[in-house]
Amino acid sequence: MTEQSATTNRQWRVKRYPATDEPVSNDLFDWVESPLPEPDDGEFLVRTLYLAPGPAMRGYLEPGHAGFFSTVPVGEVMRGRGIGEVVSSNHPDYQPGDIFVGSLGWQDYSVQTPRGKEFVFSTKKVEEPPEPLSLELGMLGQAGVTAYISLTEGGNIKAGDTVLISAAAGGVGSAAGQIAKALGAKRVVGLSSSTEKCAWLVDNLGLDAALNYRNDDFDAQLEQQFPDGIDVYLDSVGGEVLNTVLAHLAMHGRVAVCGFISTDYDPAAAAGPINYRHLLYKRGRMQGTVVFDHWERFGDIEAQLRAWHQSGDIKLCEDVTEGLVNMPQAVEDLFCGNNLGVKICKVA
Amino acid sequence: MTEQSATTNRQWRVKRYPATDEPVSNDLFDWVESPLPEPDDGEFLVRTLYLAPGPAMRGYLEPGHAGFFSTVPVGEVMRGRGIGEVVSSNHPDYQPGDIFVGSLGWQDYSVQTPRGKEFVFSTKKVEEPPEPLSLELGMLGQAGVTAYISLTEGGNIKAGDTVLISAAAGGVGSAAGQIAKALGAKRVVGLSSSTEKCAWLVDNLGLDAALNYRNDDFDAQLEQQFPDGIDVYLDSVGGEVLNTVLAHLAMHGRVAVCGFISTDYDPAAAAGPINYRHLLYKRGRMQGTVVFDHWERFGDIEAQLRAWHQSGDIKLCEDVTEGLVNMPQAVEDLFCGNNLGVKICKVA
Repeated sequence: MTEQSATTNRQWRVKRYPATDEPVSNDLFDWVESPLPEPDDGEFLVRTLYLAPGPAMRGYLEPGHAGFFSTVPVGEVMRGRGIGEVVSSNHPDYQPGDIFVGSLGWQDYSVQTPRGKEFVFSTKKVEEPPEPLSLELGMLGQAGVTAYISLTEGGNIKAGDTVLISAAAGGVGSAAGQIAKALGAKRVVGLSSSTEKCAWLVDNLGLDAALNYRNDDFDAQLEQQFPDGIDVYLDSVGGEVLNTVLAHLAMHGRVAVCGFISTDYDPAAAAGPINYRHLLYKRGRMQGTVVFDHWERFGDIEAQLRAWHQSGDIKLCEDVTEGLVNMPQAVEDLFCGNNLGVKICKVA
Repeated sequence: MTEQSATTNRQWRVKRYPATDEPVSNDLFDWVESPLPEPDDGEFLVRTLYLAPGPAMRGYLEPGHAGFFSTVPVGEVMRGRGIGEVVSSNHPDYQPGDIFVGSLGWQDYSVQTPRGKEFVFSTKKVEEPPEPLSLELGMLGQAGVTAYISLTEGGNIKAGDTVLISAAAGGVGSAAGQIAKALGAKRVVGLSSSTEKCAWLVDNLGLDAALNYRNDDFDAQLEQQFPDGIDVYLDSVGGEVLNTVLAHLAMHGRVAVCGFISTDYDPAAAAGPINYRHLLYKRGRMQGTVVFDHWERFGDIEAQLRAWHQSGDIKLCEDVTEGLVNMPQAVEDLFCGNNLGVKICKVA
């Protein structure tokens, strides 16, 4: 069944966990079609409209993962953040037609409470739904807030800073590049893996420059772009790119660590950044930031992001996968660098 | 000539730079015996009493070293911090018998000005010379101040923290362990490379425990010592020990980077710390601190160190090499972990 129905709940349930070097694919899941669940007192039923594929999802499938989330048990619906519409309700504050964002899972329908049934980023009724709704999952939601918090906490960004953004055409990256400009950075350069994406970063997102980290002269290009060094590096990638960048830190430069997607497949086989030595030479720092630690700032940041969106300082850039059936591939795409902007899966 | 003379200036001059894996030895230097230099107007002549061998000295002999000091040119007297006595003076504020600490070089006599002729840590007349004088070079001087600043800046140490000190029987390490206790750390554990040094750390320095990082069960022992993780790791060592320790960081743990002696010989061949990933999991940070950036704090810190020394909270622990002729070996000893406490070379 490829279309959402009003009577059947399509679900991706975890069948098994991937081997170390195995991509995320349909093979890891069972496609199940069930009856719609029934909300109890105080609960309501949400129909999924969009899901937000994220690299953390691979970690949900790794028992013993050292990260900050639990493994999804085999047999359960795969975890995933999404936005949807209330279709029936036994809660006085929720009416059919209300828009709800939270952990909906890889499925068409889920029973929810105002605080959600599971913790994944913020969970709430969206009082002023943006157009398109997917903005609430991406640029104005998790991607935007993550970028903002990483730049300001781990990166301690200041007006006039020079900023380098890893995976700049990705979800958090495409938000971060624009937000860094909006926060007054003097120069914002993005990293990406192809000439096409680099052109998109400059032409579409308005970054000052973009570099393909796969080029042989990447190190020399960094030197050219940052003759006085990099004040803030927002790093979601890790690996050899991080190592190269560390040697270009400015005095008192900051590396905001928010991921290491290049080594997520097999951390044990990856090389560590020996150029962390430059943290001493440059009196620099590397700091990990997790958005969940900063709940109290979410409201203000979301308001700021909406204001920037309205003024045109940050713009929508989404890469939409159509259909719940394609969620596994949408996640794998993130590891292949196949997206331009925030990855979104349109479910209905 | 093995004894200091009143008429001859013995010097170690740089002959050549070491190969990548070559130890520091007499082969790198020429032993020269010259007449005493003459101070000009505003200058004075200092007789070297003690020198402080330091691991940075190897870096002085590496052209293109990425650190924060210059290479000593071939043919020049080897750079080195020391303490000495003014023997003649053409400066109104300096009289024979005054004690002066600064960059004296690997030699018996040097011409100095109140600000010194070269920058190495602080340069000053010592108004209240401690007993023994070498304290001013070590526990109450560069080793103590470096330890204090690294613990408080990079480590952001707070009362009640759990603290791990690398190279804890070394110069900075033996100061840092005691200073961490004096600053109110709940638990201070030192790392060292032998059973004997570990016993010394507990019995003589009063650390809560000491671990031999060469033991096969080092990782398990860290877990046992720090079931709730490490709040502050003062790291002068780097390498595999750093990598192992990173996995034991407490939430919001800090790694104060002040050196990487285990990889100084050949950084290109060394593995980076892939466990920097725990900076994200634990919301931790690694930060490099260079004491020279914190001049303005030196006076207060030195006063605090003297007060702790007088109250018995920190005690003298020095490893003395006798004779200027043995300076090259004294530096190499630091890389072999052959010292207990602050390495000092007694010149006169």
